[in-house]
Amino acid sequence: MGANGLSESEKNRITVEIYGQQYTIVGQESSDHIREVAMVVHNKMKEIGKRNPSLSTNKLAVLTAVNAVHEYILLKEKVEQLENQVKELEQQLKSREVD
Amino acid sequence: MGANGLSESEKNRITVEIYGQQYTIVGQESSDHIREVAMVVHNKMKEIGKRNPSLSTNKLAVLTAVNAVHEYILLKEKVEQLENQVKELEQQLKSREVD
Repeated sequence: MGANGLSESEKNRITVEIYGQQYTIVGQESSDHIREVAMVVHNKMKEIGKRNPSLSTNKLAVLTAVNAVHEYILLKEKVEQLENQVKELEQQLKSREVD
Repeated sequence: MGANGLSESEKNRITVEIYGQQYTIVGQESSDHIREVAMVVHNKMKEIGKRNPSLSTNKLAVLTAVNAVHEYILLKEKVEQLENQVKELEQQLKSREVD
């Protein structure tokens, strides 16, 4: 989210609360999407904070980002695998048409 | 990452530096994966910090997590769309076999 070439009027400006702090998030995404993202981050921070009560909020937030990027990379591998599967199936279909 | 039922000997314990702070990350993932994740988080924090130089490290880390979760949710939608595409193609292939 952030600058994306849309005019200001096309952007949503939403204030959300994450782990006791307020953040104003600007983006072209819907308010619902932004609120969902904020809720996921808030819940992740709460969960990691519960397991590691001695962590500073700062380290907690970084570890939350680490966790999210870790899951993102795993999901990206899944996307690549699915894209290959789609390609293979499309080729199989095409070869059947030729038969 | 974190507790996952593996014995300690099967876990990797890696110390990485993110935005000037050291973090010890424990997980079943390879050291390479953990280092890649740390590097992505570090670079994201640097990028967001450059655009918003007045942000505290704390808020910067939370916004980095927001950014990562946002991208994760977009990717998840892509996974669902690809999974549907695979299902559809498999059905098309199956119906050709019946013909």
